[in-house]
Amino acid sequence: MDYSKKSIALHKKHRGKIEIKSKVPLLTREDLSLAYTPGVAAVSSAIGRDKKLSWQLTNRANQVAIITDGTAILGLGDLGPEAAMPVMEGKAVIFKEFAGIDAVPLCINTTDTEEIIKFCKYLEPSFAGINLEDISAPRCFEILERLEKELVIPVFHDDQDGTAIVVLAALINACKVTGQAMKDLKIVINGAGAAGIAVARLLLAVGASDLILLDSRGAIYAGRENLNSVKKEIAEVINKRKIKGGLAEALAGAEVFIGLSKGHLVTVEMVKSMSPRPIIFAMANPTPEIMPGLAACANRSCIIGTGRSDFSNQINNALVFPGIFRGLLDNKVRRVTTKIKIQAALALSQVIEPRPDRLLPLVTDKRVVKAIAKAVK
Amino acid sequence: MDYSKKSIALHKKHRGKIEIKSKVPLLTREDLSLAYTPGVAAVSSAIGRDKKLSWQLTNRANQVAIITDGTAILGLGDLGPEAAMPVMEGKAVIFKEFAGIDAVPLCINTTDTEEIIKFCKYLEPSFAGINLEDISAPRCFEILERLEKELVIPVFHDDQDGTAIVVLAALINACKVTGQAMKDLKIVINGAGAAGIAVARLLLAVGASDLILLDSRGAIYAGRENLNSVKKEIAEVINKRKIKGGLAEALAGAEVFIGLSKGHLVTVEMVKSMSPRPIIFAMANPTPEIMPGLAACANRSCIIGTGRSDFSNQINNALVFPGIFRGLLDNKVRRVTTKIKIQAALALSQVIEPRPDRLLPLVTDKRVVKAIAKAVK
Repeated sequence: MDYSKKSIALHKKHRGKIEIKSKVPLLTREDLSLAYTPGVAAVSSAIGRDKKLSWQLTNRANQVAIITDGTAILGLGDLGPEAAMPVMEGKAVIFKEFAGIDAVPLCINTTDTEEIIKFCKYLEPSFAGINLEDISAPRCFEILERLEKELVIPVFHDDQDGTAIVVLAALINACKVTGQAMKDLKIVINGAGAAGIAVARLLLAVGASDLILLDSRGAIYAGRENLNSVKKEIAEVINKRKIKGGLAEALAGAEVFIGLSKGHLVTVEMVKSMSPRPIIFAMANPTPEIMPGLAACANRSCIIGTGRSDFSNQINNALVFPGIFRGLLDNKVRRVTTKIKIQAALALSQVIEPRPDRLLPLVTDKRVVKAIAKAVK
Repeated sequence: MDYSKKSIALHKKHRGKIEIKSKVPLLTREDLSLAYTPGVAAVSSAIGRDKKLSWQLTNRANQVAIITDGTAILGLGDLGPEAAMPVMEGKAVIFKEFAGIDAVPLCINTTDTEEIIKFCKYLEPSFAGINLEDISAPRCFEILERLEKELVIPVFHDDQDGTAIVVLAALINACKVTGQAMKDLKIVINGAGAAGIAVARLLLAVGASDLILLDSRGAIYAGRENLNSVKKEIAEVINKRKIKGGLAEALAGAEVFIGLSKGHLVTVEMVKSMSPRPIIFAMANPTPEIMPGLAACANRSCIIGTGRSDFSNQINNALVFPGIFRGLLDNKVRRVTTKIKIQAALALSQVIEPRPDRLLPLVTDKRVVKAIAKAVK
């Protein structure tokens, strides 16, 4: 089906996907007197005396800001803040539909690290949490780290932690299907941006021992040229076989491919060079690193997932961020620790009994948010 | 009626007044494929190629940001951003109910002029307009002026221009009732903050010739001490009778009182000292400068209006901002010029035939937004 044309038509028809609604009636003078002046003065005065009341008397407790500068939109790259809005409105409708959370997308006109940090800090009185989205690496790492220190409300970078959690959950279930153990897997991650780094870190935390990470210049290893500080740090603990070269070299004999970069990078030959029953998460959006049909041609027993909603085996952080925030908000949790990430991945992996063609539950499965929110607690 | 208790109960029950809603269905995998990935990639790509498409393919064209730092909330003063949210949510529900506009309240954690200006500039790609609210004078003047120059989308400071427009409309109609002409009126404005200055400027623009403006130190006149730059400028063109002193001195013999400051400042004696049929707009919120019943005791023929929804004769900028923004958005108007303000006031004044106890239509009157929006065009 031509989702492109149909999606553009849908967006044109509705002029985007979100709107603001009132939760109170506003038909009579008395309605106005309660929702607005004079009644509202008592509400503002009460919060003025005790700021904590903003959690009870306004929508703040259920309100999350989605912040992006539009520099790393899906796998499309830096298209600017205006172009980020359709994706952010998409996140907002997912937030509402599956977790009942009111998310406000703010696509902003600065790519300066300090300015983005300040912008988020200024927003703190109006929101219960901040969801960073599609901000390119390595700025996103510093922005997240600094905000976690400097804000009281929780901050979550979906591209990092949402992706890491959903990949870990899918890999746990793929191991159940193939009967392998995480620590024995040769894992190749393509893409060393926000998602790639975060996935590598989380897999290392749960015992992955043979992990190769590639950026646009090929496999990362300690001492390689052109590494930013984040890549330098991780280079010390990955790629113990010291593989150099590109995807072809890295994938030879590997059990797992995790694609977090661009479409059409993995060939039939590469799949054939992998282990007898390879696990392939081709998560680039909208175009996977290899189309599922082609991967199946290369190896009929391979397990393949993508980020897309229209193929089976969707591995997308939309499975994660609604539940994470529901859990953060309901339990007033301030930090998404590594322990919480692992618990969330385990909870997600346990929602269904995995099959090769359905490693994870559907995004529309109402059990998902509940399971993850509970794990956050 | 005890609006305070009832209003707090309403806010507690609903946890504030606004929520985000989806305009598209999200029940099936196909819904997800269109609202989110893969379909949304085509929408983002299209906007990436042509930023103007953000007006058609996202909610931007109907979306306004309400920005405040919480330094001048109603007549309550500087209670901080958290305490401003109930008022801003109130504005948002009025925006939606009466003008169909999606307004996002952002109560921010900085009072620095430059930082507020930058914050608004960063928001520009996500919104069709910016509504400044409850930012104290004189910072609000510079913020508005700079943003009008530096942004492409329209910026409106409701406390200034919304108030000025509604006061002018009410005064036009009060003159119809009393048979007086604007140029012959002795007008006293109490409060030289955002609203007082803007009202004075607009009344001067339509020919008011005898105008006294007071701040907390009394009547403003050229050469007085303790005047900020904005007050200094206006001091040159007002108070031609060179009245000094406080409200009592200013009100003696005056035809019009416009209160834009704090409650309970006008006494029965002051009302008695005014002209035989005084026009009293006691607009401080939530407590008027004089309660309507008391003013009527002082002079049974006086015309009295307040900012409140629970008394008759409401003179509140809620009559103005929905229509102004509907007009700005629908006609892609970039600036609210003096001419537009006068046209909007005239349009508002003509919606009903005025009576002493109903100078203006009700906020809930559906004709109001249409009339003002048309005037903006």
